[in-house]
Amino acid sequence: MALIVQKYGGSSVADAERIKGVARRIAQAKAHGDRVVVVVSAMGDTTDRLVKLAYQISPQPSSRELDILLSTGEIVSSTLLAVALRDMGYAAISLSGAQAGIQTNAAHRRARIMKVESRRVVEELERGNIVIVAGFQGITGEMDITTLGRGGSDTTAVALAASLGAEVCQIYTDVDGVYTADPRLVPEAHRLAEISYDEMLELASYGAKVIHPRAVELGELYNIPLRVASSFAQGSGTLIHGGGSMGASGMEVRNKVRGITHNLNVAKITIVGVPDQPGIAATIFQSLAQAGISVDTIVQNASINNITDLTFTVAKGDLEEAMPVIEPIARSVKARQWVSDSRLGEVSIVGTGMQNTPGYAAKMFEVLSRRGINIQLITTSEIRITCIIDDARVKEAVRALHQAFEIEMG
Amino acid sequence: MALIVQKYGGSSVADAERIKGVARRIAQAKAHGDRVVVVVSAMGDTTDRLVKLAYQISPQPSSRELDILLSTGEIVSSTLLAVALRDMGYAAISLSGAQAGIQTNAAHRRARIMKVESRRVVEELERGNIVIVAGFQGITGEMDITTLGRGGSDTTAVALAASLGAEVCQIYTDVDGVYTADPRLVPEAHRLAEISYDEMLELASYGAKVIHPRAVELGELYNIPLRVASSFAQGSGTLIHGGGSMGASGMEVRNKVRGITHNLNVAKITIVGVPDQPGIAATIFQSLAQAGISVDTIVQNASINNITDLTFTVAKGDLEEAMPVIEPIARSVKARQWVSDSRLGEVSIVGTGMQNTPGYAAKMFEVLSRRGINIQLITTSEIRITCIIDDARVKEAVRALHQAFEIEMG
Repeated sequence: MALIVQKYGGSSVADAERIKGVARRIAQAKAHGDRVVVVVSAMGDTTDRLVKLAYQISPQPSSRELDILLSTGEIVSSTLLAVALRDMGYAAISLSGAQAGIQTNAAHRRARIMKVESRRVVEELERGNIVIVAGFQGITGEMDITTLGRGGSDTTAVALAASLGAEVCQIYTDVDGVYTADPRLVPEAHRLAEISYDEMLELASYGAKVIHPRAVELGELYNIPLRVASSFAQGSGTLIHGGGSMGASGMEVRNKVRGITHNLNVAKITIVGVPDQPGIAATIFQSLAQAGISVDTIVQNASINNITDLTFTVAKGDLEEAMPVIEPIARSVKARQWVSDSRLGEVSIVGTGMQNTPGYAAKMFEVLSRRGINIQLITTSEIRITCIIDDARVKEAVRALHQAFEIEMG
Repeated sequence: MALIVQKYGGSSVADAERIKGVARRIAQAKAHGDRVVVVVSAMGDTTDRLVKLAYQISPQPSSRELDILLSTGEIVSSTLLAVALRDMGYAAISLSGAQAGIQTNAAHRRARIMKVESRRVVEELERGNIVIVAGFQGITGEMDITTLGRGGSDTTAVALAASLGAEVCQIYTDVDGVYTADPRLVPEAHRLAEISYDEMLELASYGAKVIHPRAVELGELYNIPLRVASSFAQGSGTLIHGGGSMGASGMEVRNKVRGITHNLNVAKITIVGVPDQPGIAATIFQSLAQAGISVDTIVQNASINNITDLTFTVAKGDLEEAMPVIEPIARSVKARQWVSDSRLGEVSIVGTGMQNTPGYAAKMFEVLSRRGINIQLITTSEIRITCIIDDARVKEAVRALHQAFEIEMG
């Protein structure tokens, strides 16, 4: 009898009616004879509401207390889901993250799962129960409750699936799968039937809000197939997996570009004329990290006469905070000038097949230049090429690239 | 250094501002050098909201799941209160009922405390922490979370006070103490400075909504002085204790009637002409109990020719449900008739001093009869005399009795 792990996000359990809907969906899986473990997020905007409440009380709430506070959100939704299943006549039990054996390190608000001690979950499955686990939370060796930070419930689900040797981990959310591009921008974008972990990681990191990269990484590490699908509609969604193509087109003829992603929230900072000495870049990025500012792309031009230009991108909202951090450092190293541009976006093409095939970058640049879209920065990974461009041109660029690469049904 | 236990009710922590206010009050206690343990209820109407949500999902939610669900309410308020205290610079830690060692039996939704294993609380106090305990909840020997039912947080506070050997247990609520009568009915009613456990039990059972009788009983059992006061105003409230009068008036001259209570929610059922055989009353009251209907006063008239009349009272809201339970039994024992009256109320005089002093009952009846108020039923305990009358006359009766017994500042 197969064991499956399902995960339902906050919008899927936002109210009593939706919780009953999710229960019916779980019942379908159970009716197939599967043993089912369900991981659930907090209802709707519960977590945001609790965080807001804590910050109304203190500008710096204790992380320990905040984690206990936030953990109640998933406990509420998991108990209500168990109530709904029992009302339908199914044996079901809710477990907190601690009870389900989600053991983490002590990094409150962004804890990492160290181990899953799934004995209790296995016992409850053997008793015939559908086991509902509160996502996003765990417990330290000192019995302190922790939360896992962004993507926490996805990560709980995949970790449990790995620990239990599940056949598949199904991530139910408010979209019906992974698309070749954002359908709001590209009407001809279509859902991919399957995609590799690596491709998904590039898509997710660069803006696809379907499943958190942490969970994909964990799935890849333990080779757990992940199926992303809508909790509101029927449909097989997108299978994220490690093997070759499972599509009808077959591996060899599969299109090498799998998707186009974009991000409109990009600001660029360039420090011009920096002496090319060891340690300067480290000083700059350590200072930004201490200020809590995440840096995305970093590009350093070739050094001429030991003088270089350093360019990097941050989220638009962080730019105002970043500049006062940059200025004293730029001054102290006698940089010629420092400038910023907050009206940028990025567009990427993603596909594992690109790595052994030349010409994708050239084609991408040509598509953009033909339309007079200036490329401000270029970065690449093995399976991704990203161009940073004027944010007003991003939509046009995504559509043009989608058409040019003739992305096919995967 | 004295150890005090404080309890704050749901209205005292209904929002972020009130939580900060409660934190300031706790800080005052701490500033006196006291070691402080605080028990807190769920914010405002949280518990009602969670119960409603569960019943939207199932007409009979699982008690186990419901208890886990409800326990989150007090966990939220306890963490937020710890956040508030830490923000003010005080060392504070929140503990769940389970962590605080509140061990209960397995009667979900109305669990009884079996034992308090307060080791963790003591440790945290020794570390200098103000310890905030989530009220209303505990844990069974099988590690299942339970809730304590009505008056649960009051009971948690008194149980912790007993276990820790606290000097006093302070119950902060939205009224400023125990009054000689309901001030809304009797403008000249005044706050009692002190009252005995037994008197408080009669007052609380008969309508004074200040502290739950369970908590008073527990306080009496372990001889923990309880101080009831307002969490919104300064003031010493009312001390509930076991000793003699602490008032300025001294024990001997103390007024024997301590307070007047009333209850407007009374319906009466009379079964007329019941054969006086063993077992009939038992059948009636067992059937009502199975239907979940609480019976308050029971009066059986003297038997004449082995025929008797049986009268009892229920809450007005239960009358409609009670009659279909009564009818078949009354029919089967060939009772002559069965009648009900839903427009009744009760008024009681309470005071330990009455028990050895004749004349209180007579005076009470005279006050009522002088005003033409018909007494339908009379019941008494050692320290209470209750008359059931027309509900439209209750207000007048309370005022008249308050004046007649010249209840003095206690």
